[in-house]
Parts: sequence; C-alpha cells; structure tokens
Amino acid sequence: MLSKLNSVLMNQQEIEDIQKELGEKSLMGLSLDALITDTDNYIALPIDVPGHSPAGGYAHNKHQSNYKYIDQAGRLFLITGDEKYAQYAADLLTQYADKYLALGFQVQRNTNPPGRLFHQMLNEHVWLLYASLGYSCISHWLSDEKRQHIIERLFEPMLEVATVKYHFDFDRIHNHGVWAVAATAACGAAIGQEKYIDLALHGLAGDDIQGGFLAQLSNLFAPSGYYIEGPYYHRYAIRPLCLLAELTQRFRPEVDIFNFKDQVIGNTIQSLLSTAYPNGVFPSLNDASKSMDIKDEGVVIAVSLYAKHYPEDSNLFGIAKIQNQIWVSGCGVALSQAYEAQTSVELPCLPSVELNEGPNGDKGAQGFIRMQNQDGKISQLVMAYGQHGMGHGHFDTLGMTYFNNNQEVLRDYGFGRWVNVEPKFGGRYLDENKSYARQTIAHNLVTVDGGCQNNFDVETADSKHGVPHFFIGSGKTQAMSAYTYDFFPGVTQQRSLVLIENELFAQPLLVDLFRLSSEETHQYDYALQYQGQIVRTNVQLEQHKTLNTLGDDFGYQHLWNVAQGPAQETTLVSWLQGESYYTWLSASSADDTLFCTRTGANDPSFNLRSETSLVLRREAKNSLFANIIETHGYFNESVEASLDARGKVQQINIVGFNDNASVIEIVGEGFVLTVMVNNDPNATEESQTTVELNNQSYSWQGFLAVTTKRS
Amino acid sequence: MLSKLNSVLMNQQEIEDIQKELGEKSLMGLSLDALITDTDNYIALPIDVPGHSPAGGYAHNKHQSNYKYIDQAGRLFLITGDEKYAQYAADLLTQYADKYLALGFQVQRNTNPPGRLFHQMLNEHVWLLYASLGYSCISHWLSDEKRQHIIERLFEPMLEVATVKYHFDFDRIHNHGVWAVAATAACGAAIGQEKYIDLALHGLAGDDIQGGFLAQLSNLFAPSGYYIEGPYYHRYAIRPLCLLAELTQRFRPEVDIFNFKDQVIGNTIQSLLSTAYPNGVFPSLNDASKSMDIKDEGVVIAVSLYAKHYPEDSNLFGIAKIQNQIWVSGCGVALSQAYEAQTSVELPCLPSVELNEGPNGDKGAQGFIRMQNQDGKISQLVMAYGQHGMGHGHFDTLGMTYFNNNQEVLRDYGFGRWVNVEPKFGGRYLDENKSYARQTIAHNLVTVDGGCQNNFDVETADSKHGVPHFFIGSGKTQAMSAYTYDFFPGVTQQRSLVLIENELFAQPLLVDLFRLSSEETHQYDYALQYQGQIVRTNVQLEQHKTLNTLGDDFGYQHLWNVAQGPAQETTLVSWLQGESYYTWLSASSADDTLFCTRTGANDPSFNLRSETSLVLRREAKNSLFANIIETHGYFNESVEASLDARGKVQQINIVGFNDNASVIEIVGEGFVLTVMVNNDPNATEESQTTVELNNQSYSWQGFLAVTTKRS
Repeated sequence: MLSKLNSVLMNQQEIEDIQKELGEKSLMGLSLDALITDTDNYIALPIDVPGHSPAGGYAHNKHQSNYKYIDQAGRLFLITGDEKYAQYAADLLTQYADKYLALGFQVQRNTNPPGRLFHQMLNEHVWLLYASLGYSCISHWLSDEKRQHIIERLFEPMLEVATVKYHFDFDRIHNHGVWAVAATAACGAAIGQEKYIDLALHGLAGDDIQGGFLAQLSNLFAPSGYYIEGPYYHRYAIRPLCLLAELTQRFRPEVDIFNFKDQVIGNTIQSLLSTAYPNGVFPSLNDASKSMDIKDEGVVIAVSLYAKHYPEDSNLFGIAKIQNQIWVSGCGVALSQAYEAQTSVELPCLPSVELNEGPNGDKGAQGFIRMQNQDGKISQLVMAYGQHGMGHGHFDTLGMTYFNNNQEVLRDYGFGRWVNVEPKFGGRYLDENKSYARQTIAHNLVTVDGGCQNNFDVETADSKHGVPHFFIGSGKTQAMSAYTYDFFPGVTQQRSLVLIENELFAQPLLVDLFRLSSEETHQYDYALQYQGQIVRTNVQLEQHKTLNTLGDDFGYQHLWNVAQGPAQETTLVSWLQGESYYTWLSASSADDTLFCTRTGANDPSFNLRSETSLVLRREAKNSLFANIIETHGYFNESVEASLDARGKVQQINIVGFNDNASVIEIVGEGFVLTVMVNNDPNATEESQTTVELNNQSYSWQGFLAVTTKRS
Repeated sequence: MLSKLNSVLMNQQEIEDIQKELGEKSLMGLSLDALITDTDNYIALPIDVPGHSPAGGYAHNKHQSNYKYIDQAGRLFLITGDEKYAQYAADLLTQYADKYLALGFQVQRNTNPPGRLFHQMLNEHVWLLYASLGYSCISHWLSDEKRQHIIERLFEPMLEVATVKYHFDFDRIHNHGVWAVAATAACGAAIGQEKYIDLALHGLAGDDIQGGFLAQLSNLFAPSGYYIEGPYYHRYAIRPLCLLAELTQRFRPEVDIFNFKDQVIGNTIQSLLSTAYPNGVFPSLNDASKSMDIKDEGVVIAVSLYAKHYPEDSNLFGIAKIQNQIWVSGCGVALSQAYEAQTSVELPCLPSVELNEGPNGDKGAQGFIRMQNQDGKISQLVMAYGQHGMGHGHFDTLGMTYFNNNQEVLRDYGFGRWVNVEPKFGGRYLDENKSYARQTIAHNLVTVDGGCQNNFDVETADSKHGVPHFFIGSGKTQAMSAYTYDFFPGVTQQRSLVLIENELFAQPLLVDLFRLSSEETHQYDYALQYQGQIVRTNVQLEQHKTLNTLGDDFGYQHLWNVAQGPAQETTLVSWLQGESYYTWLSASSADDTLFCTRTGANDPSFNLRSETSLVLRREAKNSLFANIIETHGYFNESVEASLDARGKVQQINIVGFNDNASVIEIVGEGFVLTVMVNNDPNATEESQTTVELNNQSYSWQGFLAVTTKRS
C-alpha cells in the first residue's frame, strides 16, 4: 500500500517551485491565482455525481466538471497544503466509487463504444486520466480503506473496461487512442500498477507496432509534425500526448521520450502552433469549430511542456502572452521563469511554413503564408494541398482561407455542428455537415460540373493528395502553388496564391490564379465565402423575386440563389466586413455569370449558419480564374468614419496562360503590376522561363516574378 | 485688434489647471495624452485643403479632419506652449482663408442648403464652430496681417453665409439650428464681434421666440429633458448645446444659462444618459445607427460640463469610466478631480425612468426599465409610447427593445443608411429607410392588416402619441403599460411589459402582454426581431422550397418568408445569440401561423443588413398576445461549453382578458407564476381590481400583481 507522496506529474521540488509563485504577478502566479479562484467557486457547490444524459445534458456536463475539479483540487492540495482540497477530491472520488459499478453502460450513439459515465469511451478516458492525476495527489493522504475502495470500485473496473472489454479499441493509432493510453498509464501509475504504463507505451501486443503510445507517435504525424485531421483535432490529441509524455519521462526515463523519433513531440507542438491565425484561432481545416484557439487547455499544456524540454523559442513567449495562462505544473514553472527573464515579449508573427503530409512527407502539404505590414497587422493565407483527412476531411483540396485585420476574410464554414448544444442533435455532427460543410462548394475554390471533389467519396479522397509545385515563404512576394489531378474526372487544377507587399497598398495584395485544364467542356464555379455587406459591384445584378436553390445536390441544395448577372471584363465586387473594405476583381467576360448566394435552403431545423458567397460560373475546357483581393480603407460606424471605400485596382488582364506559364496584369490609376507564374511541375528555383504571350515576351527566373510599372 | 489671450472656452486659470495634469494617470492626464498623440500624428501629415466631394469622399473627410485638428492644435498650444501647434493651426486657417471665397457653393443634395466646403450647411456650421474655437486659442499669437486675412477672407464671409444668405435657416428650433447658433456665437466671440453672440442667443429677430439658443432651449426638450428625435440626434445636438452654454456662461453670465428654464441643460444631459444601454450604446429609437454610444464626443463634453456646473452625481463617474475620456477643458478638470476623489468607481446601473414627451410632458413617454441580477448583469427594456419624432420618426409606437448579457436581444433595425460610406448613396439615407426600416413590421410589435401605423403618414403620426397607463420603475417586478388609439383604423392597442426578478430564473423574466381591440376582424402580426441561431421550436415548420416575400408593401416586400407552420397552444422558439440562450413562448392556437423571416428581398443593391424575425399571425377582433422571453443558459463555442440550453417555462395560459384586466399563467415544472394587469385607463395605484375569469376570482391592488406558486 502507498502512503508516501505519489503524485504522477509533480515531485516535491516542483511543488516547492510552484509554491514560491503564490501571490506573484508572474505567469505562474497569475495562473495559480485563477486556478484557486476557479476551484474554490466549484467546490463551494454541493457535490453531485449524477447518472446519464446526452452530450450537452446535465449529467454529461457534471461528469466533465467533476473530473476537472478532482484534478485541480488534487494539485492545489499539494501546492497550498490546504486539506479542504484533499477532502473534496476524496469525497468526489468516493461517491464515484460508490456508484460506478451500479451505473449501466449507456446507449451507443456513434462508432465509439459507450461508457458507464458517458455515451462514448472517449469521454470516459478523459475522465479517467484527470481523475487519476487528481487522485495521485491525495492518495497518500487517504486512509487505507478509502484508498482501497476507490481503487477497487472505480479505477480497476475502469481499467478493465478500457483494456479488456474494449481491447479492440484500446490502443489504436488514432487521436482517441492517445486518450485511452494516457488514461491507462496515468491510472496505473496513480494506483501503483505499473504494468499499465507499459501496456500504454508499447500496446496490448507489446510490439510498438500494432498499438500503444510509441506506435502512435511514430505514425500519427508527418515529418513536419502535421496531424492529418487538422489543427482542431490536433489540439485535442496533443493534450493526452503531452500528459503521457511527461509521465513517461518520469516513470520510464530510458525511453528518452522527448528525443523519440527525431523529437516528434516538440516537432508536432511547433507544427500545431504554426497553423494558428494571428489572433490565436485555428483555421478550420477539415471538421472544426470556427473559434477553437491556442487558449485551449491542450495547447497551454503543450507550450509549457515545450518550454521545459526543448530549446528556448522566443515565439513561444508571444504565444504564452496570447494564452495569458500556463499549465500549473513543473513545466509551467519552467515557462514562467523563462518568460519573466525576457526584457519584453511581443505578439508573434510566426514565420511562413509549408507543413508536409503523410508518414514520409510526400503526400502533399498545408501551406501557411504570413506577412506583417508597417502597422504590425498580420495577413495570413492558408492553402490546403495535402491529404484529405479521413472521416473528418473536407473535399476542398486547393482550398484557401485568408485572414487579416483581425478577422477571417475568405472564410471556411467549419463543421456543421453545434458542439455540446444538446437540443441540436445532442451536440453531435449534423446531417448538414455532410450535405453542406464538407462539400467543395462550401469552400473557397472551384467546383466542377456542380459536383464535389472525388465525388464525396472518402476512400477515393484518402487515396489522393495535392501535389506541391512551389512554396516561397519569405520576402515581399510570398507564394505557393500546387496541383490536383483528377479530383474531378479528367480535370487538372493548379492554384497559385501570391501575397504581395507593395507601397501602393496599405495591406498586402492577394493574387489568386486558379487554372483548370481539361479536354472536355465543364462548368467551373469559382466560389468565395465572404462575410459582410456588399458595398458596390460593376455587375448588373438581377435580384430574384422568388428564391430558388443554386442546385439540387453536393451542397448546392443549401444555397439560395439570391441574385445573378452577367460578368464584366473585370468583374468587381466590394464588401465591408467589420472595419475593413475588401474588393475582389476577377478577369472574366459577359459569358460568365456571377451569383450571390446565401446558405439556409433545405435546412428545416435551422442547423446552418446564414452565410454568403460569390460564385463566378464559366463554361470552359482550359481556363484561368485570375483574381485579386484588395484590402482597403476603414469604417467605424460608431464614430461615423469611413475612408477609402473604393480600392485602387481597376482591372485584371490575363496576358496569357498555358501549361508553361501564366501572366496577368493588375491595373490601376498610374500603375501596372505584372505577375508571372511558372506552371511547369518540373520547374526549379533556377528555371529560366521565357514565354511569348499576346505578342510580347516575358522572361524570369524561378517560379514567380512580379514587376511594378508606375506612370 | 486683439493681441492678448482671447480663447473662447479656456481662461488662464483653466489652462494652468490642465497643465498640472500633463503626464498624470488621472482622467485628464490620460485624455490629454491621447489628445497629444492624436494631434501629433495628424500634423505630421502634409497640409491639404481640398475642394468638393460627396459625403464620405476624400474632400469631405479632409475638411472634417481639418477643423478637428485646428481646434485640438489650438488647445494644445495653450496647454503645452509648443508653437508648432499654433503654427499648424495658423497655416491651415490661412490656407482656408486663401481658398474659401474661390470655392463655389456645392450642389444641394437634401433639404439642407449647400455650403462652400460641404454639401450641406450643417457640416459647414460644425466646421466654423471648431475652427473658431481653435482660432481663438492662437489669435493673440498671430501677426496682425495674418489675423486680418483669416477674419476677412474666411470668418466674416462664413458668418455672412450663415446669418444673411441663409437667414431663413439660421436659428430655427431644430437640432441643426443649435449648430448654427453655436458656430455663429463662437466665431463672433473669437474675432471680437460680440453682436453675433447676441444674435445666436436671442435669434435674428431678437425676441427669444422665433429663434436663437434660448428659444431652442425652451422648445426643443420635454420637461423630462427628452429630445423628440431620439438619442441618436440628441447626442448630436447636445454637443453645440454644451459648447454654446459654456460660452454663454463666460460671455453673458447674466443669462445664468445653467439655471435657465429649470436647469434644462442639466436635465437634458441626464435624460440623454438615462436612455443608454448598460454597454453605453444608445437604443436606436427612430432613425439611428446601431452603434452610436456614450463615447461620442458630444456626450463626453456633456458629462464634463455637467460635472462642473451641476451637483455631484455618482452615476456620472461610472459613465466617465465607460467613456474612458473627458473633455480637455476647464469642465474636464472639474470632472477629473471629482473622479480622482472617489474611493472606487463602479459601472452604473442607472435607475429605471419614464421620460415624458412634448413641451408640457403630456404627449406620451419613452419608458426605460433596468434590473441588475446577482452577477451584476443588467437587463434593460425600452418601450416607445411617446411622440412620432417628425421626419426621422419610425412608425413603431408601443414598440420595444430588450437588452441583456451585453447584447440587444429584441432588436431594432435602426436606420437604413451606411453612414459616410460613399459608394452607398454618399452615405445618406437610403430608399430602404422608408420602405423598410421605418415601417411597423421592422419593429417588435403588432402590425395590423399588413399595413403600417398611421399609414406611414408623418403628419398624421406627428399629430398623435402613445397614452401612458402606468410605469413601475423599482422593485423586483417592474412594468410599464400604454395604449394607442386608431394608429390602425378602428384598433385600440395596449401593451404591458413586465420584468420579473424571481429566484427561479438566473435572469429577469420578460412578460409581454400585447392586447388589441376592434369591432372588426383584422390580421394581427406579432413580430420579434431576433439575432442568432434557432435552436429548437415546437412548431412543425415547413421550410419553403422557393422563397417568396411575406407581402408587397409596408416593409413586407423586403421580408423573405423562409418557413412557416401552424402555431401550438403554447408556441415555443429558442435561439442562441452570443453566449446566451433565449426562449420565446406565446399563448396561441393552431389557427395562428408562425413565420420565420429574413430581410433582403427587393433589395437589389444589398442595402439592407440580413436580419431575422419571428412573426405570429392571427385573425381576430379582440386578442391578447401573451408572451414571455426567458433568458437562460450559457454557450461558449471556443471552450465547447453549453449549459441549460432549454429554459424552464413550458406553457403560457391566458386565464382571461378584457377591458378591465388581463390574467395569464406562466407554467413550468413545479411552478406557476400568475401575472395580473389592470387594463383600465383610469386605474391608479390604489385601485382594487377583482375579476372573475375562467371561473376563478382574481383580486389585487394597483396596476399589477405577480404571484408565484411552487409545488
């Protein structure tokens, strides 16, 4: 039996280090202060250990809160020495031990098997992980009898469910699997049954191949550290990953976990952070909420852990500044001390980065370009040209999102889900996630023949990936380009996104060259998801007297066709979003049609948010959508100020395009910008390109050139 | 000729008092610091005095900025002694003097005559007021020649335009007239021609009746201090009003302006402040923006002025805290010193107040009820039962808005205008202001027979007003009730709004009893303008496959009929707005129809915001719409938390209603609230009401009773 301190993640030295920060204004002191207030507020409420409810229902929420405060109370008992915390955690754990075995298993509601507390084992693992960590902080304080009761009536049965009853689901290589092994290891460590640590690390089979933490670490991440399901799921998986890594370092130091597989842990933390928008919100790549951000607990833990175990990185301090909290732990102490040692901490402008995908890094990539203007404002461009992302994947390869002036400008709908909103299908994924949110037309790219990439077939989509052409991540002209082949039958697509800093413009100019090639004629729908109020357009829009949908399938059935009109030679639409004006110009012709759409059709339960898009439709074989987005002006309704409501660019000319190159001109009063892009998949930085287009010769070296001519 | 200090609004003592605050952390110190930074940034730019442009265009904006910085530079010269400020103001004024007479008059674009700098004299007066104040700070520093140039080529011609050329429009009793007289007085004082002060105070006719500041003060405001056009225009008129009052006190102390007409100035400042929502934003009564707030310069000046000239009011400090700035002036010094003398300053929960309308206070009223819950959150209910409001009036007598949890819940559309957005009709009022925003259906109340109150006729509407029944502005049950007669032909309407604090609910419960009486059958459309996502409803909504408008006229032509269904005995709709859930329940029957609408139809230029409403339609002669709005739960997507997505109220029963009384029951699990309202226009606080309804007898004293029965 245990009776000495056995806290899984805090040793005596760390406890003392944290104690020193009590009442200080350091990151640790402030985080500790917040932790105490939060915990004290909760433990003042009556204890309740309820039965079952759907996700978002009372019992579900209560079980979640309970595990959180078992952990927090446990840690605060060690840090403050106040026995009220130990008593609270003990009482709560005892009540769970009293009731756990009497609770029947819930009804299964998705592919995840049901637990006794929650409708899916995923939540049960999270509960076990936190309850175990909390328990480990008070186990030496408990009487033998209490301790035995909790172990025998709660923890051992839970371990049995995890590793025996659902052994087939226990240690698989998936984000849920990380929670399972972390919970099992933490519980084993907490109750002194270390065999569970080894099961967790090496898998039930013990071969480090079929399952277990080391196999997960070896297989879940690309060499870039990118996680296939995207940042929303990555930030969820990184929490148990970091907790189990820290445990492993303490209980199995010989594994040298922080150097394991070329420092995969540090690598994947950096990769996750490098996806975030400047305001800390993660781009909603694949199924994802629109507001998940780096303040999420998993990311807070990851940043603290990185600070302790990896070399100093000043961007991390900027991220901690946005987070405004740290993990109250030994790792947090390390971060807090390093943070306090800085003379000043700036909000970070993370470098542009291309994150490769696939176990060998050869399954395409996700591109992130960032540019900071003189006012310190950061523009970020995201392009998806990697893997599909399995069951949570969206059919949007070559899709982009664009962020500046503290808002997402070219938007992604995110998932079709009201997470934890119980009356909305228990907070689970809604039908509209499939019928709209994951469809190609819901994104910022071209939909062919009113369909969906890979015909909305996950298996087909998972077998393909985008093909990177080039990535230029520094300087005043940054760019990325990639291809897809046969994502729509017989159609090759290339998208080249260029972000140009130029003294003509207060903000970078976004150039989007979306090229399609096919031997057959297709309907190409170039779509931009915008938010705000249309301010002006040069298209004679006919607003429909009765609204119909834009189509019947592949997401089009959810789009009201609000207005349409024949495109212009250069089609222009300006809109106002928040405090900024945006103008989209696209080289087109009267044969093209512009549609203004709004989501909400065929949505009888009001499950979709009401959002707007612009769709430029064209019939063609080979075609180039040549577009710019200009960010301009300022609007503030409350002080009734408006500046520069009209942008500077007036015209886009396509000089020419073919399989070798695309050349366009961006024309305004007194200036012409010429953008030249190499389209040859075999090109290199050294390639010399010379093309004859429209009776003029253009030459440049490398992938891309931009020239400015002023008059 | 002048050569000693002649600043119109700052004497030597005040200048020294302000100087002492330089670099301090007081309100004055911080405001001064902000003023210096702002001014320095502007005067670093090249000087430009342009010609003409539409509102929102470059020249318009530049002229506006120029007057602002002439004033600021003038004040900062006196405060800091730095001659760069004097030089800047002098240079700018000189350039205006060089060009002013050469500029032709602009083209007239509305009923306001055009100026040389702006398209309407209103803006020209604002320019003259500020430029004069700034000039008065530097006139003693100028050479005689410079001074004479500015007076002769700029100020005297501007005074001539204001008082001679447009004499018919100069001193009229209207918010524009206050700007005219303030500008004229300030300019006269600045250039030492005090006759203009007297013209401004007493009018061109000199009789204090036909025009002038004193006549304006006597006639523009109700005894309550309310201004007929509503807070949006009130906050605009209060700026010249305060500036001219301060000038009057200095140049004509014998008028005793701050005690004039029972302290009308202090009174109207308090009245304006008392309309604001808890976040400082003004409710958009009549034509108004959705974001105008108490940080507006006029309100900042008014609060400083009140602090200097009227007795201490601790709510004012709370308002200054929200404003986070003061008027850099002698008045500001007074406020700053009083503020610093407080031990602590709380955000204010202003008292509930009924503001009467009309010169004698007998033309109805505007009601404002506020309630603060234990968490400090303030609910505010606004009901319009006063005057129409002339050309900017909305046809919404008995309309309401409702605010809680830091957001407007039952919303008013505000004006149909993109203020200063030049591509949107020069930033002026749009056609949709008439065709939608001012119509009855755009508000939260009942529209009869698909029409509009008073048939959208301003003259008729101005001849009527709401008739107050009762106002209970304190305690745990607050309420207001009022009638209209024949706003729709042959229909009498009574609305009683009750806000109930009850331990059953975390937030006050809103009860809305909207009663209509007629001898004929009418179509009654009870509308609620909400924002957010519908979460659940008990109505079997049929979502339309093609959308049509809800009607052809009176604003209905702008509403898409998105979905409809037969009402339930108690119709329920819940929605999620921001972090709060709201549930509306209404006693109804299957003969009624619920419509879900969205604005945007017949709006080819995308001038309207896309907003949603619920419309409950009923055919009846005498009818009571008995409704509650329950505020419940919590949602935070970024931390994936949702609590209490379903409210507690399940049913609304109408026990009975007639011309004497209305009684309803609000039923939930384990509770029944009974709400009893006296409907008799002759009732008093002492009235004993006994009614027999549905075979039961109900008795209470006064206007209203609420009982709670728990089981």
